[in-house]
Parts: sequence; C-alpha cells; structure tokens
Amino acid sequence: MSKGEQTRQRIIEEAATIFNQRGYEATSMQDVMDATGLEKGGLYRHFASKEELAAEALRYALDRSVRRRTQDLGDLAGAIERLKFCVKRFVETPSIVPGGCPLMNAATYANEGRPVLRELARKSLTEWRDRLCELILEGVHSGKIRQETDARRIANVMIATLEGAIMMSRLERSKEPLRDAQLALDAVLDGIALEEAPLREASLSV
Amino acid sequence: MSKGEQTRQRIIEEAATIFNQRGYEATSMQDVMDATGLEKGGLYRHFASKEELAAEALRYALDRSVRRRTQDLGDLAGAIERLKFCVKRFVETPSIVPGGCPLMNAATYANEGRPVLRELARKSLTEWRDRLCELILEGVHSGKIRQETDARRIANVMIATLEGAIMMSRLERSKEPLRDAQLALDAVLDGIALEEAPLREASLSV
Repeated sequence: MSKGEQTRQRIIEEAATIFNQRGYEATSMQDVMDATGLEKGGLYRHFASKEELAAEALRYALDRSVRRRTQDLGDLAGAIERLKFCVKRFVETPSIVPGGCPLMNAATYANEGRPVLRELARKSLTEWRDRLCELILEGVHSGKIRQETDARRIANVMIATLEGAIMMSRLERSKEPLRDAQLALDAVLDGIALEEAPLREASLSV
Repeated sequence: MSKGEQTRQRIIEEAATIFNQRGYEATSMQDVMDATGLEKGGLYRHFASKEELAAEALRYALDRSVRRRTQDLGDLAGAIERLKFCVKRFVETPSIVPGGCPLMNAATYANEGRPVLRELARKSLTEWRDRLCELILEGVHSGKIRQETDARRIANVMIATLEGAIMMSRLERSKEPLRDAQLALDAVLDGIALEEAPLREASLSV
C-alpha cells in the first residue's frame, strides 16, 4: 500500500467511527480533520465531499461489522452450533466500530434524502440475511435442521431480535436485552433442530 | 384551550413529524417555521430554543406511539390475546408519527451528547416494558400464563423483535420482516400460554 493509500485508509477508519457515533448530519469535515490531524488540502485530496467520505466510511463500517457477524465460523461442526455462535458473537461484541450497529444507524439517519448511504445499508442487510439463510439451508441438507424450516423467516427474526436488542442495550447501558435476545434465539434455533442421535438413543431405551 | 395553547400544540405536532423523519441535527427552526407558516417571533414566543422544542416534540411522539402500543386493549378477554393484539397493532401501524419508531430514532440520534432526549427515550422504553410485564403478570395471576414465565425477558424480546423488524421493514420497504416478527412472537406467546380448558378436556378423554 502506498503512503497515499495508507492515509486514505486511515481517514476512512477514523471517519467510520465519527459518522457511526454522531450520524451523518452532525459530522463535519472539520471533525474528520481534527481526528486525523490532516489539513483541509490533505483531506480533500482523497475525498471530494462529505458525501463521498461518508459512503466510504459506511462501506468500511458495514464490512467490519455486518459481514464479520457470519464469518470465521471456524471449526464448528453443526449448523445449529454455527447459528448459535453467530448470535453469541453479536451479543458479546455488538459494536466492533464504536457507536452501535452501523446498519441500524445508517438505516435511521439515511432513510430520507441520503439514497447512496441508504442503499449501502440495504445491501448489507440483504447480505447478512442471505448468509444466515445459507447456514440454515446447509443444516437442512446435512440433516441437522428440519426440512420444513422457513429459512428466510428464521433469518429475519434473528436479525430483527439482535438489532432491536442492541438499540435497547445501548439506551439502557445494560447487557440484559442482548442476553434476553440470545436466550430467545437459542430457543428458536433449538426449535428448528432435528433431534440428535443421543435423543434418539434415549427414546429407544424407553 | 386558549389560542396560544392551540398554536403551541400545533407547533409540537408539526415538529414531531419533522424531527422524527430527519433526526435532531438535520432539523432547523427554519424547517419548523416553514411547516407551520409561523414567523420567527411566533415560534420563539413558545419555545426558547431548538432543544426545548425537540424535547416537547419527542415527548409528544413517544406518547402517541409507544404508550398507545399497549393501550385500548378494549374487550379482549385473555392475557395472551391482549399480548398478541399489541404485536398485531405494532405490525399493522408501526409509525403513527411519520418517520418510523420515535423510540428507535431518538435512541439512535440522541445517544451521544443529547442527554435530555436520550432520557425521554429511555423512560419511554421502560414504560413500554413495564406495561408488557404487567399484562404478562395479569395472565399469570388469572391462570392463563405459565407461573414460571420470566415476564421481563418476554417483554424485552417482544420489544427487541418489533423494533428490529420496523428498522428492516423501513429499509427494505417491505412488510415481510414485520410479518415474520409477528409469527415468531405469536409462537413465543403460545409457548408461555397455559393449556386451555378444551385441551384439558381432550386429555381427560384419553
């Protein structure tokens, strides 16, 4: 990465936090200059406008937060375990970029009059749901999840519950809503799980 | 109501919609003047500052939206029916004040540096949860809901799921996430319901 690219990347990372914490309207290019220590010329060399910087910053924040929520599931074997791990990771680290969930923040502040930011948030929501649906369908194919499961509905409910809970947890400065969400979603996931071998053995022994 | 009080009320109602749609930062007193047709003097006679008007407007929006969500349950007899009706009404009319849920909007835009607005949102969340808990406990006392039900947890999950779903539905301009939330919450509520007389009769006949 060239020095210019490094500077550009540093600006994006600093701006991502500021936009995520304050929202689009309350953030000025001056705030970004203050945070990065750059002069006006240095900042505008990389970004022609606040709109352009905000879009790059949001893309970065969404990539870090939303995509990561379904990545690196590592060596977890079962589909249900993978889905529960997605929930657990969200509950334990709800905001990788400070300021709460960038998807929810952008959905709120970009809903009117900010079509570029809105579209980034919308795409990111679709990707998150698609990835959860994939995990569910993998479970159906491998015989770990009930055939009749409505993958889209389960994915929607997982996202809705987690997003609502992070809003509540931030507002109340308490982990309780997120922990309650985890308990509820674990129960939903247990509900779509096909019974495992130990349970079948148990019923055989009756 | 005097003419002055009527004007004041009209300003609050117009401002509630504007603040709810655009957020605190993007709304100016000029926007409110444009919407109400009032001159500067007329507006500032009633509200000394944007902060003061925003607080009154948010109080009004929260009153209309959040409190109403658990009110007027009319002649619904059972606790489960009442709780399901709260969910149904939210899904059918998610934003009484245009611009989405004022609780979520305020929680997002007022989280940093706006302690008065933040506190209004926090109180409103507490009231909503308290009211749902009351409905659940009434059901426990009347024998319609399982004794061991964790009322706070159920209430938190109801609010989280609905709030997350309204964010998704607005972003995608689709009712689907809200309808999926309703199906999931109806299942949660069926899960805490005590079996009704017909079921007990059925088991007696076995």
